[in-house]
Amino acid sequence: MNKTNYWIWHFGDFEIFHTMQVQLRREEQGYHRPPFWKIHTPYASVKFRKQINSSGGYMICHINGSGHIAVDSIRHCENTHIELTPGEHTVEVLVSNYGGIPAVFIESDVCPSNESWTCNHFAGEFEPVSYNEYFDSVYKNPEIFSFEYKRMYPLGKENYNDGILYDFGKEIFGFLNISGVDENQEIKVFYGESREEALDTDYSYISDRISGEKDYQLRQRAFRYVYLKGLPIKAQISADFEYLPLCNKGSFKCNNPLFNKLYDVAKETFHLNCREAYLDGIKRDRWIWSGDAYQSARINRYLFADKEIDQRTLIGLIGRMPIEQHINTIIDYSLLWIIMLYEHYITYGDKDFLKRIFSMADELLNFCETRINNDGFIEGIGDDWTFIDWTKMDKCGAVCAEQMLLIQTYTAMAYFSRELGVGNSDELYYKSEELKAKVNKYYWNEEKGAFIDSYTSGKNNITRHANIFAIMYDIATEEQVERILENVLLNDSVEKITTPYFEGYELDVLAKLGVFSKVEDMLRSYWGGMLELGAQTIWEEFDPTMQGIRHYAMYGGKYEKSLCHAWGATPIYLFGRYYIGAYPTSPGYETFTVKPNIGGLAEFCGTAPINDAIVTVEWNEKHLSVIATKAGGTLVWKNNNYSLVPNKTLVIEL
Amino acid sequence: MNKTNYWIWHFGDFEIFHTMQVQLRREEQGYHRPPFWKIHTPYASVKFRKQINSSGGYMICHINGSGHIAVDSIRHCENTHIELTPGEHTVEVLVSNYGGIPAVFIESDVCPSNESWTCNHFAGEFEPVSYNEYFDSVYKNPEIFSFEYKRMYPLGKENYNDGILYDFGKEIFGFLNISGVDENQEIKVFYGESREEALDTDYSYISDRISGEKDYQLRQRAFRYVYLKGLPIKAQISADFEYLPLCNKGSFKCNNPLFNKLYDVAKETFHLNCREAYLDGIKRDRWIWSGDAYQSARINRYLFADKEIDQRTLIGLIGRMPIEQHINTIIDYSLLWIIMLYEHYITYGDKDFLKRIFSMADELLNFCETRINNDGFIEGIGDDWTFIDWTKMDKCGAVCAEQMLLIQTYTAMAYFSRELGVGNSDELYYKSEELKAKVNKYYWNEEKGAFIDSYTSGKNNITRHANIFAIMYDIATEEQVERILENVLLNDSVEKITTPYFEGYELDVLAKLGVFSKVEDMLRSYWGGMLELGAQTIWEEFDPTMQGIRHYAMYGGKYEKSLCHAWGATPIYLFGRYYIGAYPTSPGYETFTVKPNIGGLAEFCGTAPINDAIVTVEWNEKHLSVIATKAGGTLVWKNNNYSLVPNKTLVIEL
Repeated sequence: MNKTNYWIWHFGDFEIFHTMQVQLRREEQGYHRPPFWKIHTPYASVKFRKQINSSGGYMICHINGSGHIAVDSIRHCENTHIELTPGEHTVEVLVSNYGGIPAVFIESDVCPSNESWTCNHFAGEFEPVSYNEYFDSVYKNPEIFSFEYKRMYPLGKENYNDGILYDFGKEIFGFLNISGVDENQEIKVFYGESREEALDTDYSYISDRISGEKDYQLRQRAFRYVYLKGLPIKAQISADFEYLPLCNKGSFKCNNPLFNKLYDVAKETFHLNCREAYLDGIKRDRWIWSGDAYQSARINRYLFADKEIDQRTLIGLIGRMPIEQHINTIIDYSLLWIIMLYEHYITYGDKDFLKRIFSMADELLNFCETRINNDGFIEGIGDDWTFIDWTKMDKCGAVCAEQMLLIQTYTAMAYFSRELGVGNSDELYYKSEELKAKVNKYYWNEEKGAFIDSYTSGKNNITRHANIFAIMYDIATEEQVERILENVLLNDSVEKITTPYFEGYELDVLAKLGVFSKVEDMLRSYWGGMLELGAQTIWEEFDPTMQGIRHYAMYGGKYEKSLCHAWGATPIYLFGRYYIGAYPTSPGYETFTVKPNIGGLAEFCGTAPINDAIVTVEWNEKHLSVIATKAGGTLVWKNNNYSLVPNKTLVIEL
Repeated sequence: MNKTNYWIWHFGDFEIFHTMQVQLRREEQGYHRPPFWKIHTPYASVKFRKQINSSGGYMICHINGSGHIAVDSIRHCENTHIELTPGEHTVEVLVSNYGGIPAVFIESDVCPSNESWTCNHFAGEFEPVSYNEYFDSVYKNPEIFSFEYKRMYPLGKENYNDGILYDFGKEIFGFLNISGVDENQEIKVFYGESREEALDTDYSYISDRISGEKDYQLRQRAFRYVYLKGLPIKAQISADFEYLPLCNKGSFKCNNPLFNKLYDVAKETFHLNCREAYLDGIKRDRWIWSGDAYQSARINRYLFADKEIDQRTLIGLIGRMPIEQHINTIIDYSLLWIIMLYEHYITYGDKDFLKRIFSMADELLNFCETRINNDGFIEGIGDDWTFIDWTKMDKCGAVCAEQMLLIQTYTAMAYFSRELGVGNSDELYYKSEELKAKVNKYYWNEEKGAFIDSYTSGKNNITRHANIFAIMYDIATEEQVERILENVLLNDSVEKITTPYFEGYELDVLAKLGVFSKVEDMLRSYWGGMLELGAQTIWEEFDPTMQGIRHYAMYGGKYEKSLCHAWGATPIYLFGRYYIGAYPTSPGYETFTVKPNIGGLAEFCGTAPINDAIVTVEWNEKHLSVIATKAGGTLVWKNNNYSLVPNKTLVIEL
């Protein structure tokens, strides 16, 4: 039998299904909480088709759902052996599956199910099917995501009041197992990311009340601690940790132990949130947010360089056409989706993927353009949400930070258009330039030497956000950059960033400008501050002035803060992008630059993924050495360029 | 407790869910056969909302799916007692349910779930919810359709070869029950609409092989006969007949026993096919076809006058926007959907429904207009199917019959536009008139005195179809009508209609023109021909020249013909529309005409629904008497008009 067969499905169905499953699973304090945006679903029926010309053979068709296979319009049942006569045949498989993923697996010596098949949703053109190499057996159902599992046992056990507190030693996402209990006894289970949360039975975010069985495997949740009431002495507790097997390609070690620890904690935090797609946090929301995902995609680029999770996230977020609202209802999150796609393409160079998803990006831009006001700026209407950050910002009328993202969005779309040879690339570049000019006219405040939030309110308020984007996306001129640095970034009277989300962007910009002292100060105080409080994973938000369990509160809930939030893992990106200094200069790292910085460190050694290869940089007091496992690299060092020969160490004596 | 509470859901979800369930249930010879058009699905999550201002009270919220209830943004679990303080409150219920219908049922003394709530799909505007009065209890799940059940036992039992044939005496749709069997013995079940089909085990359309249980209730199927192999003597057989309780409002009795029988058989046929929506046939396809449904809606109007099945069918067929293909992929079926909506509105006058669905009709027309060719005619592109009828027709280029439907579609849309005060009614009327003029120019063949099928082939071929539509929709002039009658309808050299579907339209037109002798000839020969062969329900197609079981063959299958096909029930329409002669002259029979015809009969007595009322007409050799249970009626008799006084018999001595 030809081994190259996989479960095949309609483009998007797999990602949309798993995105939906994840997003509809959120619970808190006993109730379910669906996202406040539209949930997309897979197609209910799909038609698969392949034309073959062979010397004869056989097929056995397996269907996920119900349907049949037709060879030259002669219909056959699934799971039956079908003989194919020599010659040309049209094979079609019609599948319906409402509630799951319509998918097909064909064993055959002549037309196994693989990328050579096409399909449609009984409407539209036939397009190549999608598949995933993991699902290479009829027994691996594509509705069951490709996680791995590890049985874990509590490392600590403590009697507390009339219950028992178990500590698994680290935060995990998984299934709690309870066995050997009395089926007539109700057991109460309280989960906690923190010890305090698990023990605070009136307020712990997730809890269960169970009875009627002797053994339980509970629903998957995030926790380090569980506090159980009603357990007999003989009860046994374990957990099945559910995780996505991902390979660490990035690494970083330096002479600063705090930074090394921080890197590990960021890695742990990030890995826990890399699942069906990029989650924001594993306890809460467990939703997929485009802005958070954009940040995650940048971190992923320097740790796992896992192209697939980027793609699953992009597809899951955009869902099915037509577009009826902003992604996550947030203006900036629509724009960041397109910018994420741009950086994704530059990183992995997957043109096939870009081709498949480009029309959706185009529809998203069209949707955004329905929100352009009379002055030519994007502005929220109806339920559109101008998020940008959890911060005090003058959000009157069209907000500057959104325009910065729209400029970069046009640049990205122009780039796609040129790469794919579709649409009008020049017009999109023109739109980008035109908007840039308008932004300078309306938002640049010469007196303050910075971009203001809003031009309609008359307040001329300045926050860091738009100014950070202006530097991130090379919108500000050199002169503007200098003034922003002085007047905003290094100006303590401008309100500080409070979320690791936007702090990530700020540090990106500071590192880009070479202000490593500030970057390292912030890593020490902000990230280091959490570690000092015992954090094993990075929190959703951190205010050093808080005390005790007030650190765990957010959104009005005593323990509502997520203590394992992906957007805090940004140090991985910073070390990879600016210390190791690797970045692509053409799609997929076909060509790339390595421009290391030592910052305030004495020495470091690290690796960065360069798409599917690796570059290793070692810097100590004696020398800088660089080795890449693929061609196309250039080391930039003190204004000199050095070509990197694959797998050959380049050493520069210092 | 306030009794006026129902399960509430998003407009369309109920109908789309049940349409999907029905359409994905088709099976034949062991395999499933999904429709070859796109399957629409309910929204996966819905947000319900109500603003209340009360003196205080309570709520208990039940959710079909998962979610929670929020009162002034404070979230509560489902199934809990919530106290409402006096004053204003915003109540929201967030529900997700992928695979079912997101729905809510609220017990409350102040805001029970009913038509006063609004909802959206977490996108779009909030709109009034939908509900159905049947689902008035938390125990009646809207995913379980409101059928009734009747236990039936076989009327006959016969040993045949090594099995037993059971005859239930009439065709039913339902669940076969087998009890008291040996769990180790495989039982084979062969269903038959005919005796021959059940016994022809290699070819019967539906069969089962079951084992492992002592008692079975099998999946619901259509059958009169079941042939079982492997049954022990002690086995017991029954069936649970599943049907929609509908009230016969129409009736017809006359001096012709064949017509009386025909009326009853038509009634039986039609009722069996009236379920979640109008089915084409209960054995096969069990799909919902727009053209078939149009025919059914006309029959319903004179039998059950059940507004709801019309509406369920219209919603189920159009599904969710955007429109990506013709309804059922058929050009004429898109146009007939709009014409069906028009006749529905005229019949029941439900302006709320028209308002809700108008935008979809508009999108459908827009879609159709993407298929207008350079000459201004609608024409198929890509996979568009020009059906019209199972007949030899010159389908080269734009087909005349489609243009006739498009003219009526424009007329209908213009009418909606005027009724609702939306869109440009004048422009739509103009399009209708303009197209009519073009059709006359391109398709009217003066020499042949008829409309030709196609103007591009040069064949000048004439079929009955376009000519019938031209008269049905008052497109032909008086002079053209006379010529068509002579040259086409009464011209035996023009190929005869073979389907009851189009024969229904032909007889409609012949009756409209007063040619009752032809109508009655056809009822006698065509419909009567089936009855002579023992038909208890009307067949999908009938060719009097066939013999024996060849009557049961169709589409290349020995028993593939449906022997209980809705479109054969058209005599009900004819007797109601032309003999009793009742029809509306303003929406909802606000005003109506009764214009009886005796045809070739000596006497008749019948009732016709006039929306939610009834008119009874009795005609014998002595007098014509008419009584209507509502106002607004006019009896038209020999060019005189007589106002009908409600509930007062008007007698005209003959």
